[in-house]
Amino acid sequence: MNKTVCSTSFSYSDSSPVFPDKDIIYICPFSGAVKGKVLITNFRLYFKSSDADVTVTLDVPLGAISRVEKMGGASSRGENSYGLDITCKDMRNLRFALKQEGHSRRDIFEVLFRYAFPLSHGLPLFAYLSQEKYAETGWTIYKPVEEFRRQGLPNNKWRISFINKSYDLCDTYPTVLAVPYKSKEEDLRKVAAFRSRGRIPVLSWIHRENQAVIARCSQPLVGMSGKRNKDDERYLELIREANDTTKLTIYDARPNVNAVANKATGGGYEGDEYQNAELIFLDIQNIHVMRESQKKLKDIVYPNVEESHWLSSLESTHWLEHVKLVLSGAIQVADKVSSGNSVVVHCSDGWDRTAQLTSLAMLMLDSHYRTLRGFQVLIEKEWISFGHKFASVSGKQHCETPRSPPRLFGCYFPTAFEFNEHLLLTILDHLYSCRFGTFLYNCESVRDQHEVRSKTVSLWSLVNSKVDMYLNPFYTPESGRVLYPVASMRHLELWVAYYIRWNPRIRQQQSPVEQRYKELLALRDEYLKKLEQLQLSDSSTSSHLANSPTPNTTSSSTSPPSQQYTHLQTPL
Amino acid sequence: MNKTVCSTSFSYSDSSPVFPDKDIIYICPFSGAVKGKVLITNFRLYFKSSDADVTVTLDVPLGAISRVEKMGGASSRGENSYGLDITCKDMRNLRFALKQEGHSRRDIFEVLFRYAFPLSHGLPLFAYLSQEKYAETGWTIYKPVEEFRRQGLPNNKWRISFINKSYDLCDTYPTVLAVPYKSKEEDLRKVAAFRSRGRIPVLSWIHRENQAVIARCSQPLVGMSGKRNKDDERYLELIREANDTTKLTIYDARPNVNAVANKATGGGYEGDEYQNAELIFLDIQNIHVMRESQKKLKDIVYPNVEESHWLSSLESTHWLEHVKLVLSGAIQVADKVSSGNSVVVHCSDGWDRTAQLTSLAMLMLDSHYRTLRGFQVLIEKEWISFGHKFASVSGKQHCETPRSPPRLFGCYFPTAFEFNEHLLLTILDHLYSCRFGTFLYNCESVRDQHEVRSKTVSLWSLVNSKVDMYLNPFYTPESGRVLYPVASMRHLELWVAYYIRWNPRIRQQQSPVEQRYKELLALRDEYLKKLEQLQLSDSSTSSHLANSPTPNTTSSSTSPPSQQYTHLQTPL
Repeated sequence: MNKTVCSTSFSYSDSSPVFPDKDIIYICPFSGAVKGKVLITNFRLYFKSSDADVTVTLDVPLGAISRVEKMGGASSRGENSYGLDITCKDMRNLRFALKQEGHSRRDIFEVLFRYAFPLSHGLPLFAYLSQEKYAETGWTIYKPVEEFRRQGLPNNKWRISFINKSYDLCDTYPTVLAVPYKSKEEDLRKVAAFRSRGRIPVLSWIHRENQAVIARCSQPLVGMSGKRNKDDERYLELIREANDTTKLTIYDARPNVNAVANKATGGGYEGDEYQNAELIFLDIQNIHVMRESQKKLKDIVYPNVEESHWLSSLESTHWLEHVKLVLSGAIQVADKVSSGNSVVVHCSDGWDRTAQLTSLAMLMLDSHYRTLRGFQVLIEKEWISFGHKFASVSGKQHCETPRSPPRLFGCYFPTAFEFNEHLLLTILDHLYSCRFGTFLYNCESVRDQHEVRSKTVSLWSLVNSKVDMYLNPFYTPESGRVLYPVASMRHLELWVAYYIRWNPRIRQQQSPVEQRYKELLALRDEYLKKLEQLQLSDSSTSSHLANSPTPNTTSSSTSPPSQQYTHLQTPL
Repeated sequence: MNKTVCSTSFSYSDSSPVFPDKDIIYICPFSGAVKGKVLITNFRLYFKSSDADVTVTLDVPLGAISRVEKMGGASSRGENSYGLDITCKDMRNLRFALKQEGHSRRDIFEVLFRYAFPLSHGLPLFAYLSQEKYAETGWTIYKPVEEFRRQGLPNNKWRISFINKSYDLCDTYPTVLAVPYKSKEEDLRKVAAFRSRGRIPVLSWIHRENQAVIARCSQPLVGMSGKRNKDDERYLELIREANDTTKLTIYDARPNVNAVANKATGGGYEGDEYQNAELIFLDIQNIHVMRESQKKLKDIVYPNVEESHWLSSLESTHWLEHVKLVLSGAIQVADKVSSGNSVVVHCSDGWDRTAQLTSLAMLMLDSHYRTLRGFQVLIEKEWISFGHKFASVSGKQHCETPRSPPRLFGCYFPTAFEFNEHLLLTILDHLYSCRFGTFLYNCESVRDQHEVRSKTVSLWSLVNSKVDMYLNPFYTPESGRVLYPVASMRHLELWVAYYIRWNPRIRQQQSPVEQRYKELLALRDEYLKKLEQLQLSDSSTSSHLANSPTPNTTSSSTSPPSQQYTHLQTPL
């Protein structure tokens, strides 16, 4: 039995049918050929088996489709050889067979092709058609000035600049930037001229106590001739001076050789002319290498999990190595900052590997980002507002970023995160579902132009309207704690709940421990309620309850064990 | 910092010093050369560093030592090159350096050699000298007749035989055997003549509802000429008939080729002459191959964990493959039995691979064995009473059985076991510590001869006297449930808490989730106590408490969530 259901409940009547219920055969890699009916709306492909003995359901958002191909010619032989082959961005391949007579696949192919790639066909993205209504609006979750204020900015070293309010300093940057107090607006323009795509170094996070910062940017435009730029050098010096860091550490996410090769196309890296700066390469491969690795990963997990040489097959994809390098890079960043040294992080354009490193380092450093809403802020800030290639021209979404690190964190530190794995899966699914506006387009300027915020719904509207689905019952806030995961191969494992989720042989169940814990929390609350009732009904016994903790009291982490649960999140 | 402490608290004043505090250098693989003092008692080697800046403690039961070698000659050069190299059965190697002058290592070498291998030197095993006293005696935990009664035996198909009461049917079998009701005592003797070491097929477990059994034995003595034995054939037929199994399934743990090769030394396997029987080879390698694999495993985890090709290195040890084959063999046994078919399990002598298969299958089938005391019964029954080569002549203990499966179970089914990982580690440590009599000698007859039960202490005396150390807080009894773990490489992982425990870089901490859960249980109990106090102090409010569950009520698993915790084990 292979039951595949979309991870979020969304009635398909919310989208409009564009292709009627039609008889089709789904070539299921687990159950074999299964007869059923297919329905396509402007949002999704829905298949339901009609055989009595096997139940197969498919529910695929069209945005998750990366390719639709015809399989077998009109003259092809063999059963079920004529049909469609659909490649998905969620590690699946779907094959459908149709009757050969009368070009029966033509209609479905055309409909799929149109609606899976709407922008190429002059159609609006589904997010603009969706009529979903939620109690909360997710568009207000991230307000840059408020987030800077939370971090303690502006202060006497850092100021908020609106120089980019019309996106004319940098068209892929947000409008609100935090820059050294001493830098002048004309300095910023001069620096922009020397940084790839104008992505100048700006503050992304500041350490409350030691004032060390994480700044992010793109590579300097050094080129073959080894150009220097005094303004850029002076500007980095301003960043260093802001908290008297002896040496500013520049983390270049790339492998050294790639950074050198980038000089040929006008890029490069900071040389010795940058005084008081130290450059460290983090050896993280670029998106093309990642994509290659992910393709290999798909081959060993879908449809069947390679069993006989699983460990060496997994090793040969190099996937966990990439994950490890990203993780250990982020650990270095977090460690440097928490010991009082400011850092600058960049790669080539500074919107993929850079965002990975800065956001992971911030997850380690700042417990606010480990809350449900703080995590949304982090994604809005480091990925959405600072620009990331979520979309390519055709309306396809792509994103080959290693997705495992936040989930690995959850394994290492099961009580440190307010949200659960289901939130991560939901985010990844909606990276390309096209149902929400959140991950549409690559940067703020284009989003403004397409009025994303006023015309589409935010993914966070969905999430924050049913918070209890995404909460980790084990969560215990520890605000001062820096998390240092171990970046060793022995500790890394493949994220099975994501990468192998389509395989019906892989069990996916709520952890019984989690279930148990939730029940126990409920029981505690029930007892507490009874105690309160007793207290009300008989005030003479109230002395017994004087020390009894109540669920909503916040208590410090040094409180005795019996009080430690009072700050636990109870599912709402 | 490398702190290595014995897993159970045992004051070393309980054993007698045989070698005084002496200055020595421990060549620690993690901290380098560490100066300190060594003390040897008749039970253990104890080392404590004297340097102020590094704390290293070693506490090694002498029974855990498998080899002591001199390192470097009297004329050897280089710092710390003259000393001792100690190989342990717990994956460690210990190197000590001494001063070259005056043959300073001679005394310590001789003392270690004598007391680590006492039987070769006419000395008693330490278990006979230990004066430990416990509130409980572990020797009564397993009573064969009682255990058979628990299973519902004897009944009209199976009888209890005392034919082996003087160990003259089979000197490695226990005295109490369960055999088909219809078999006569003289039949048993004839069958014994045709089974290696007289280890005839006997019932080890019976399914309460469907009456299918797990019988265990050794290989038939078929030999090169392909001998038949009508008595043996008829006897297996009696086992089959006992619950009307259509076909009796014989699981031969060995690889097919090995079973064939065994014919050359008089052994073999059941051929077509066994009607109504089906033979299945489970492809589990013998002890020599296992040992080779474990040696390779040691190379990649001690002292340092191979990082750059961890996954392929782990694969090349084949360790997880062995674990997988044992696990999938046991699953087949459990599945066959739970669907109503009786099985016979054997390997060559039927005391290593056979015990692995039968005990794992029983853990899956019978929830009683998943309790703290039931697990002790299982070990006493399948390993100790049915004979297993725990000891070799020199007083060395050895046991290369894959130890991971029960722990894997615990990962798959975190609420199914009453005991925790600490129990498994304790058992493994005392397999060769020589502190308890439990794992001394290979079979009951030799244990009787050496008066183990009257002259030594049982490991279960220790365990059952401080039960709370070994309880799993998440345990929820589900008596009818059969556990089927997934025997796939993707689900297997190395048991780090055992195999990599000496590495100080590998964190070993109590799971914060477990900690949290225990605290929450304590909180629940506290509230409950308050509720009870209130009830006592004011009987008018008792109506509020009418439905309140109390910790010691047993409730069915179908009770509403608020009642589900009443049967949870609270640490005592």
